[in-house]
Amino acid sequence: MTTQPQSGPHLLDLGRLVALIDGVFAVAMTLLVLDLKLPSQSGNLVAALRQMLPGFFVYLIAFASIAGYWTIHIFNFRLIRLADGPMVLLSLVNLLFITLYPVTAAILGAYPLNPIAAGCLSANSILYCISAWAVWSHAATNLQLLAEDADPRILQRVSRIMLLVAVGLTLAIPLAFLSVPVAYAIWILCAPVSAWWVRTRWRPAA
Amino acid sequence: MTTQPQSGPHLLDLGRLVALIDGVFAVAMTLLVLDLKLPSQSGNLVAALRQMLPGFFVYLIAFASIAGYWTIHIFNFRLIRLADGPMVLLSLVNLLFITLYPVTAAILGAYPLNPIAAGCLSANSILYCISAWAVWSHAATNLQLLAEDADPRILQRVSRIMLLVAVGLTLAIPLAFLSVPVAYAIWILCAPVSAWWVRTRWRPAA
Amino acid sequence: MTTQPQSGPHLLDLGRLVALIDGVFAVAMTLLVLDLKLPSQSGNLVAALRQMLPGFFVYLIAFASIAGYWTIHIFNFRLIRLADGPMVLLSLVNLLFITLYPVTAAILGAYPLNPIAAGCLSANSILYCISAWAVWSHAATNLQLLAEDADPRILQRVSRIMLLVAVGLTLAIPLAFLSVPVAYAIWILCAPVSAWWVRTRWRPAA
Amino acid sequence: MTTQPQSGPHLLDLGRLVALIDGVFAVAMTLLVLDLKLPSQSGNLVAALRQMLPGFFVYLIAFASIAGYWTIHIFNFRLIRLADGPMVLLSLVNLLFITLYPVTAAILGAYPLNPIAAGCLSANSILYCISAWAVWSHAATNLQLLAEDADPRILQRVSRIMLLVAVGLTLAIPLAFLSVPVAYAIWILCAPVSAWWVRTRWRPAA
Repeated sequence: MTTQPQSGPHLLDLGRLVALIDGVFAVAMTLLVLDLKLPSQSGNLVAALRQMLPGFFVYLIAFASIAGYWTIHIFNFRLIRLADGPMVLLSLVNLLFITLYPVTAAILGAYPLNPIAAGCLSANSILYCISAWAVWSHAATNLQLLAEDADPRILQRVSRIMLLVAVGLTLAIPLAFLSVPVAYAIWILCAPVSAWWVRTRWRPAA
Repeated sequence: MTTQPQSGPHLLDLGRLVALIDGVFAVAMTLLVLDLKLPSQSGNLVAALRQMLPGFFVYLIAFASIAGYWTIHIFNFRLIRLADGPMVLLSLVNLLFITLYPVTAAILGAYPLNPIAAGCLSANSILYCISAWAVWSHAATNLQLLAEDADPRILQRVSRIMLLVAVGLTLAIPLAFLSVPVAYAIWILCAPVSAWWVRTRWRPAA
Repeated sequence: MTTQPQSGPHLLDLGRLVALIDGVFAVAMTLLVLDLKLPSQSGNLVAALRQMLPGFFVYLIAFASIAGYWTIHIFNFRLIRLADGPMVLLSLVNLLFITLYPVTAAILGAYPLNPIAAGCLSANSILYCISAWAVWSHAATNLQLLAEDADPRILQRVSRIMLLVAVGLTLAIPLAFLSVPVAYAIWILCAPVSAWWVRTRWRPAA
Repeated sequence: MTTQPQSGPHLLDLGRLVALIDGVFAVAMTLLVLDLKLPSQSGNLVAALRQMLPGFFVYLIAFASIAGYWTIHIFNFRLIRLADGPMVLLSLVNLLFITLYPVTAAILGAYPLNPIAAGCLSANSILYCISAWAVWSHAATNLQLLAEDADPRILQRVSRIMLLVAVGLTLAIPLAFLSVPVAYAIWILCAPVSAWWVRTRWRPAA
């Protein structure tokens, strides 16, 4: 496919792919909230709200994760101009793991101190990071997909960061069996650390 | 309608039709996940997760089906420039069968080894394929809807593939009464086979 | 406001208004399906599917109503170029009645032969039609909102059809107390009759 | 960041940010309706509908709030041309508080005369207003983000109105402990008062 001409029957403008991606991110962000339900059996509102607190905390973590992945996506996609078949396929796998967040967040919201529930959310994030790595490194090695003055090394660096985040999240899985709050700490640190990191990698290489 | 001029009061730019289509696909893909609920009565998380496995498997099949239909849609719609009334109507029927996936997937997720439940998902896919065939063959026979250098024979070939997929899925209905896993195998094979097939048909006729 | 210049601080390009409208229509169309739930207590799938039939029928009516209103919307909005404050406000009222369809359809799905439940769906449609009449007649009397060669009389005629549909649907309310199926018949006839009618009004006045 | 050139690796076109924002607003507006459920235990439809009335009233307030915030958003965003990192981050915080409306509205719908439930909805609105203030004042002080002939003082005035609305909503919290209907009255007055106010501030300074 890399030997094909610049534009052809297998190359696609990004418009509709980006519309589907933004649509799925927007719906997933909003559906997360459906897990935050008032416990029906409690007549006391204050007690009910207190019961909702762990779910609310998990909601914030899941919202921040999806929002962070979306932010990396919009910054990276500025370098990309066209999609081929594998790019569409890998992007749909990306979206699969975004649509799973409402489930894995609901599992953790129901069992907030269970290491297996923490493992479900970690696994979801790890699989997203690996699929995002696949998207960025596919683009970085198929130059006909890139915008005219795009530097493929930026995408390569960002794709490596996704893998490193996946490694960090993998460490969270066994650590959760020692202490679940440690896994929470790793998740909470992931977003600002990787955002700062991606940002430094966006500096043009001097 | 085929005798009307190139652009007129009954012909429509595709912008908003495509926005609605991408919106419905994005919401349907994400709503599928609402069927994946933790069983409320089980106190044991591992047992609960095991109970969710068939639903998760059905979720993957339904997600892959919707994602596959969407991929065929974006590749084909590049050949189309305008919509007339029947095209809008047929596209809305398309969307009707996309919005039904969360229901038919939930039915199969609740009864994963029931041939009638398998028949519901098969019927949903068959009806989508027939309605997609109608969209592509309507476009292929109304040249004023096509983009300037679009080859209507590509749409004709793709529309025939949709019918053949519908035939394959129809065979899955009686076969499910012999063995439901055979129906699963047919669904799982459908996506890569038809994707590969559509892809070969996209090669310009030499 | 009609005395203001062609473009100013209170006039708005349609892009984001149309994006919100298409988004709400897409989500409402897809959310309708959440009312179609397998009855949880029945172990027999065939009996459960039979219990879902009235809800499925109501779903088809609601989907066709929303789809029909959207089709009228995209054809009419081609005549409009800008929005002012009242246009945004009236469009948001439009969307309010679209978002209510999942509720009124769920009520009728639960009580398919109850005239009061039928009245809820009729009332929803009537309120939508009146709000759509308000949008089209506001545009028809504020020429600075229209596209360059748009004929405001087309919008006036379409807005009158919306009122006539509202009258027809109002008749369905008392008739439902005689026989609920008559109300169903009126709803089912509404879509094709008004679509055909709007279509004839779209013919340029000779 | 204010010392960077007009367009660079950290500045972003608004297209996808606006698409995500409109998507989340559209989904949140439509998801609100999921709180309006027929009480399952009542066999009498009229009694069930009467039980739904408080929830319906809360739904109208929440819909109007989200619709009002969106209207202010589209009018203000016409002045903005580019987004930097902090603008994306603040906009995502904006969306966080929009996605919470279905939860806080559901809490108030279940306890319509409870001052703590009223406080949840007030808190949600207050947090949205503060985050919107942050977006508008960030844009007003980063001129490289603005459209060419945009007057930053308009954004400054609108951002101050958001803070004043937040103050008004904060007063609603203790007042709800005296009388919950007073809080309702404040919410209902907020939308038209702030809309009128924003509108007067949009007049070009003579």
